[in-house]
Amino acid sequence: MSKLKLNITISLDGYSAGPDQSTQHPLGIGGEQLHQWLLPLKAFRESHGEEGGEVNASTPFAEDILAGAGATIMGRNMFGGGPGPWDGAWNGWWGDDPPFHHPVFVLTHHPREPLELDGGTTFYFVTDGIESALEQARAAAGDRGVSLGGGASVAQQYLAAGLLDEVVVAVVPILLGGGARLFDNLGGAPPRLEQVEAVGAPGVTHIRYVRTG
Amino acid sequence: MSKLKLNITISLDGYSAGPDQSTQHPLGIGGEQLHQWLLPLKAFRESHGEEGGEVNASTPFAEDILAGAGATIMGRNMFGGGPGPWDGAWNGWWGDDPPFHHPVFVLTHHPREPLELDGGTTFYFVTDGIESALEQARAAAGDRGVSLGGGASVAQQYLAAGLLDEVVVAVVPILLGGGARLFDNLGGAPPRLEQVEAVGAPGVTHIRYVRTG
Repeated sequence: MSKLKLNITISLDGYSAGPDQSTQHPLGIGGEQLHQWLLPLKAFRESHGEEGGEVNASTPFAEDILAGAGATIMGRNMFGGGPGPWDGAWNGWWGDDPPFHHPVFVLTHHPREPLELDGGTTFYFVTDGIESALEQARAAAGDRGVSLGGGASVAQQYLAAGLLDEVVVAVVPILLGGGARLFDNLGGAPPRLEQVEAVGAPGVTHIRYVRTG
Repeated sequence: MSKLKLNITISLDGYSAGPDQSTQHPLGIGGEQLHQWLLPLKAFRESHGEEGGEVNASTPFAEDILAGAGATIMGRNMFGGGPGPWDGAWNGWWGDDPPFHHPVFVLTHHPREPLELDGGTTFYFVTDGIESALEQARAAAGDRGVSLGGGASVAQQYLAAGLLDEVVVAVVPILLGGGARLFDNLGGAPPRLEQVEAVGAPGVTHIRYVRTG
């Protein structure tokens, strides 16, 4: 059965987004600093149709994020468009050719028809919970993994339910001082993790954990 | 001027102690797991008069903790003995020959005479604030560094005041789910940090940061 993996960047104080998230500031105030390790990389630029860029110790982690999965699950806030029933004009942050190139399952309370965009990305809107989304994503991913895109709230739900098999955190040297904390609200019996890899790269440390219980 | 450095172990969810700290559980419930990377090391065992032990990628970080400083600053809770005026019978957690072997400045609201123990460790009780403690510790450390021992509250105060020059975190693969968070209550303008080193070791990742603003 394909594994569910979370790749996520957090600040040193544990936030995966800064305070005051909004349509204008999808990652909250200061949150755009979180991904400064990723954006200059050749692997990232190529996936967005741009040339040039850096190759460094972060490259395998970027490649894993960008091309490692056969399906993605994300929360409503990560897809964007504000809360409440859907405004049909909102098709996500990523333009006509999103960088996923596989089915993406968006957890939401509000039904919506699937949204097929260019390059193999179709967004499916799942209203019957995290387990249903995982089941659908696994079916879509075949023998590849399922990526948990975020944000923090969705990641917490999968973690607390013991459904996340692997977590790869990128810890960046910033203190956001507020926002959405990834490892929070984990309930009374947090999962057991084992550290399997740690790599220092320019401006970021990558740590890979697998769930052992 | 000698630098003020914090070496501290945190769980993946950012806690430097578990919930419900007490005299019986000085590191809170589950907090004793935090230092499992340190205790089996030869460097640690030797500093406590024991033989044998492991040598691995954590060894330089353990040596830095154990012998890197000329003075230490710690909070009242880390010295222990419960809150309020001093019970003269409490001489810390470490027995007659504490592993510091240099002057230790304990931040407290309650005055107490200096406590000289074996092996070069004298505890001084500082009642006039973090800046006074740092000044006294620097004078005592000479050309060596000053170590900030913790706990979280004291570390936050030095961080928020911009007085901490270097932070070395040991991130261990446990989720405590509650307790004292190191990087919290940092005020409106958290310090700027630069990552200068990251090392994966068995069951822990060490990351060194220096303050740049």
